[in-house]
Amino acid sequence: MSEPAYTVDHRLSDADRNIHNAWDNALDPVLTVEPGDVVRFECRDAVDRQVDVESGPEEFQNVSFDPVHPLTGPVAVEGAEPGDTLVVELLGFQHKGWGYTGFLPGEMGLGLLPDEFPEADVHIWDLEGDVGHFVNGIEVPLEPFPGTIGVAPAEAGEHETLPPRNVGGNMDVKHMTTGSTVYLPVAVEDALFSVGDCHAAQGDGEVCVTGIEAPMFVTARFGLEKDREIDQPQFETSGPFTPTGRDERMYATTGIDDDLMEATKLAVLHMIDHLHEERGLTRGEAYILCSAAVDLKISEVVDAPNWIVTAYLPESIFPEA
Amino acid sequence: MSEPAYTVDHRLSDADRNIHNAWDNALDPVLTVEPGDVVRFECRDAVDRQVDVESGPEEFQNVSFDPVHPLTGPVAVEGAEPGDTLVVELLGFQHKGWGYTGFLPGEMGLGLLPDEFPEADVHIWDLEGDVGHFVNGIEVPLEPFPGTIGVAPAEAGEHETLPPRNVGGNMDVKHMTTGSTVYLPVAVEDALFSVGDCHAAQGDGEVCVTGIEAPMFVTARFGLEKDREIDQPQFETSGPFTPTGRDERMYATTGIDDDLMEATKLAVLHMIDHLHEERGLTRGEAYILCSAAVDLKISEVVDAPNWIVTAYLPESIFPEA
Repeated sequence: MSEPAYTVDHRLSDADRNIHNAWDNALDPVLTVEPGDVVRFECRDAVDRQVDVESGPEEFQNVSFDPVHPLTGPVAVEGAEPGDTLVVELLGFQHKGWGYTGFLPGEMGLGLLPDEFPEADVHIWDLEGDVGHFVNGIEVPLEPFPGTIGVAPAEAGEHETLPPRNVGGNMDVKHMTTGSTVYLPVAVEDALFSVGDCHAAQGDGEVCVTGIEAPMFVTARFGLEKDREIDQPQFETSGPFTPTGRDERMYATTGIDDDLMEATKLAVLHMIDHLHEERGLTRGEAYILCSAAVDLKISEVVDAPNWIVTAYLPESIFPEA
Repeated sequence: MSEPAYTVDHRLSDADRNIHNAWDNALDPVLTVEPGDVVRFECRDAVDRQVDVESGPEEFQNVSFDPVHPLTGPVAVEGAEPGDTLVVELLGFQHKGWGYTGFLPGEMGLGLLPDEFPEADVHIWDLEGDVGHFVNGIEVPLEPFPGTIGVAPAEAGEHETLPPRNVGGNMDVKHMTTGSTVYLPVAVEDALFSVGDCHAAQGDGEVCVTGIEAPMFVTARFGLEKDREIDQPQFETSGPFTPTGRDERMYATTGIDDDLMEATKLAVLHMIDHLHEERGLTRGEAYILCSAAVDLKISEVVDAPNWIVTAYLPESIFPEA
C-alpha cells in the first residue's frame, strides 16, 4: 500500500525526558504542535528494555511490570479542548530489527490463560523487513501498530497504563495500522497525547498478554474536530483484516459457553490443542503464536444462553510441508 | 472462487416429513448416507414461513418464536459412533430470491439490545445473484452459510434449537461459507445430522437476532474421522473475512468495558450512532444493517480490568456520494 507523502515536522527521541509510564494530566508536555503537524515518535518496548535479543525464559520470568508502559509524550495539541475529537493519522512505523512475545508465570494472573501456564516462556523474534521469524520455519507477516495510543484522562492523578479507558490508552487494537485514522475523545486542554508499546504484529485479543513487542518509530499527523464529540475511541482502517492481507485458508476453533470470556478461553484453548497436536508446537509456543497471529471474532451473542467466539489461524504462516 | 465438481447423491425437500424443530436423538432419520455421499437439502427460513416478501413491521412484531428453527433432517451417517468427528464439506448454497432481517419487540428480550429497541422492525431484502438490496441504495454482498448446523446431542429428550451446544446447532458462524469444512463431535450412533436457518449474509454476532434469513438449498458432502475426538465444533474456511472479500476501508467503533458482553453492546451502540448520524439511517435500520453487515472482533482481553470489542463497517456497501 503506498502512503501519501508527508514531511516530519517534529521528532521525539526515547530519551528519559520524553518518557512517562502513567497517564497524568498534570504532566508537562514535551512538545506542542498545531493541527496538521507531523511528529515522529521514538518508542521504547512495553517492558522498558528489560528484555534483549539474548533473553530466554529464565530472564523473562523475572521481568517487572512496574515500568509498563513507557510512553513517548505527552504532546500538547494547540486549541484542543474537552469535548473535541483528536484526529491521529498513522503515517508509518519502523521497527528496529527485533521483538519478543512471552508470558509471565501464571501466579501473576496476567493474560487470558494464567492457570494453564504456570511457567514463563518467551520467543525472541528476528524481524526482517515485513516478516517475523518464529520456530519451525513459521513466518508471521508484520503489520505494526501502537499497542498504546491515547490522551490524558480528565481525572487528576496518576493512572496506570495497563487498562484502556474512554480516552484510549492500551487498546491493543491490531487494525490501527499504517494508513489508519484514530479518533480520540479530548478530555483536557491541549489533549496531551502519548504513544508507545508498539507491536510488530498481534492476534486479536493479545491472548498471552504480549504481541510482538518491539521498540519502534511511529509517525503521526494530528488534526482536530471541534464540532464532534465521541465517548470512546473510533477509527478508520483499511486493515489488513487477515494476517496476510488476503483471504486464505484458515483453521478455526469455536468456544461455546454462556459467558463470553469463557467462550474466548475455550476457543483459544482449542486452538492451542490444534497447534500442539497437528503442528507440533509446544503448548507454550502455541500460546505465544496465538497471541501473535490468531484472530478472534464474536460469532454470535444472541442465541441465548450460549455465545460463540471463534479463533482463526492462517495456514500460510507454516512452511510448505 | 471455483468449487470442485460434485454430484448430488440424495435430495431432501422441505416437506413436513423432512422437517423437525427440536434436537432429539430419538428422531427417526429421514435419510441414511454413507461417508462420501453428497446431499442437497432444501431448508425453510428460520421462522418457518411466517414472513413473506410483503411483510412489514406490523406483521413481523407478531411472529412466533415457537417454530424456530425448522431443520431439514436428521440424516443418519452410516458407521458414525460417539467420539468420532463428522466432517461436513459445504459445497454450495442457493437462495430463492428474497430474505429478511428484523428484530422483535424489546419486551421479548431477544437480540443484543432489546432495551434500546422496544418496537419491532423488519427489512425485506431483494436478493439478486450475490447482492442483497437494503435502503438508500446500500448493497450488501451475499455470502450464504447455514445458521444452524449440527448433530443430535447425547442427552435424551427434546432440546430447543436456539442455543448452540457442544454438538453445534445454531452457531451462526458467518465464515462457514461455500468451500468450508465443518467438524462436528458425534454424540450418538449415526450422528443424526440436520441443517437449516440459512443466512444469505450476516455480520459477526448477528446482533439484532437475525441475519439475512432466507429459505435456501444447502449442498454438503459427508465424511467421518474415526480416530479424532473434538469437544466443540471446528472448521476450515477461506472466508471471505470481510463482507466484500477484499481489504477495504472500514469505519470502526470500540466498546471498552470490564465486561465483555457490555463492551460488545457499546461497540454496536456506537456503530448504530455512527450509521444514524453520518449515514442518515433510522436507528432501527442501523441495528438491522449491523446484524447483516458489521463484523465484531475481540481486540483485547488481557489489559485488566477493561476489555475491548470493535465493530467494523465496510464503506463500499454505500452508493458513491
